[in-house]
Amino acid sequence: MRLRNVKNKEEILNNCDCLIKNSEDYKGKWSSLFNNDNPIYIEIGMGKGKFIIENAKKYPNINYIGIEKFDSVMAKAIKKIPSNIENLKLIRMNALDIDKVFSKEIDLIYLNFSDPWPKTRWHDRRLTSKIFLDKYDSLFKDIKRIEMKTDNEDLFIYSLETLSSKGYALSDISFDYHKTDTDIIMSEYEMRFKAEGKNVYHLFAQKK
Amino acid sequence: MRLRNVKNKEEILNNCDCLIKNSEDYKGKWSSLFNNDNPIYIEIGMGKGKFIIENAKKYPNINYIGIEKFDSVMAKAIKKIPSNIENLKLIRMNALDIDKVFSKEIDLIYLNFSDPWPKTRWHDRRLTSKIFLDKYDSLFKDIKRIEMKTDNEDLFIYSLETLSSKGYALSDISFDYHKTDTDIIMSEYEMRFKAEGKNVYHLFAQKK
Repeated sequence: MRLRNVKNKEEILNNCDCLIKNSEDYKGKWSSLFNNDNPIYIEIGMGKGKFIIENAKKYPNINYIGIEKFDSVMAKAIKKIPSNIENLKLIRMNALDIDKVFSKEIDLIYLNFSDPWPKTRWHDRRLTSKIFLDKYDSLFKDIKRIEMKTDNEDLFIYSLETLSSKGYALSDISFDYHKTDTDIIMSEYEMRFKAEGKNVYHLFAQKK
Repeated sequence: MRLRNVKNKEEILNNCDCLIKNSEDYKGKWSSLFNNDNPIYIEIGMGKGKFIIENAKKYPNINYIGIEKFDSVMAKAIKKIPSNIENLKLIRMNALDIDKVFSKEIDLIYLNFSDPWPKTRWHDRRLTSKIFLDKYDSLFKDIKRIEMKTDNEDLFIYSLETLSSKGYALSDISFDYHKTDTDIIMSEYEMRFKAEGKNVYHLFAQKK
């Protein structure tokens, strides 16, 4: 994502109740923060937040946690969040720290248009590298579920391979997702790619 | 496959006990022909037979049935079969008739280097088209399992999509199978592709 600075971003971040600053304190206890036992879905790399905010509005019985690395991007997302939303929290952190923040409590991970890290020597940084997949194992409550969309075919093929090598069974595989599925909540990126006629790739991965 | 005529092919076919001429008579009763209750694995489009013959030799407790459309190709396969092999049968037929020959008795279907039928108007002829996948449903005894290898990326991507759209969960997905797996029984095609440094694609599909 191209980063543009956002004015008053510190102020925006500091004034947002959704943004959980002491996220490590809730490890294994996120349900208590939401004050219910609904499933918890997280999006790693939520970007400007359109996808997770629309999901949170549409599915009030699911708890959503959006994770984003960059202050400026997070500030943009925060500006879009309705004030009365109870089932959405945000964490500003690097995905590498994800196992410090969650333990046996996640039902689903969304990976939408993650950085493709195209050079081979960067592949370990991909959010579907075996390093990350090993980290995710400890986050899930029970069945491990990952849903992924990307515009990058190379990242998609890489992810089909890494996920299946780590014991995930893959379903709902599409190399042109918008051709077949029409009722999709789209991210900002996805809206643009669709408008430009670019392919969007999709998979669903599950492991017991 | 490029077809070369084989001399005396009628004679070769007629003299082979492995080759089941009245295959429709055994529908639902193939175990009785093998005279045991071992799992039955079939290969649709066995070509010159290297893959299925080697498997039959290596795994005597699995029953194998090789299916091939062309007389000449079948005759070449027959020439390679050891005389004392009990767990291998062959059928010369068009795959379109497969549901006339099997019913609720197959444990696994192998599809190795199937014809890619590259033109869009031919896609229904692909052995992983939705038409064929629907036919296969009635063949399986219990859990539906398909293992596929191909050198054709377009056919592979098409198959990932059709299989997952028909409820199969996919695992062991590889876009460069020989890079990761070394202990592989290879078909004639596969030997050649490997020698030429071409990619071989692999998937395993399962549905309850």
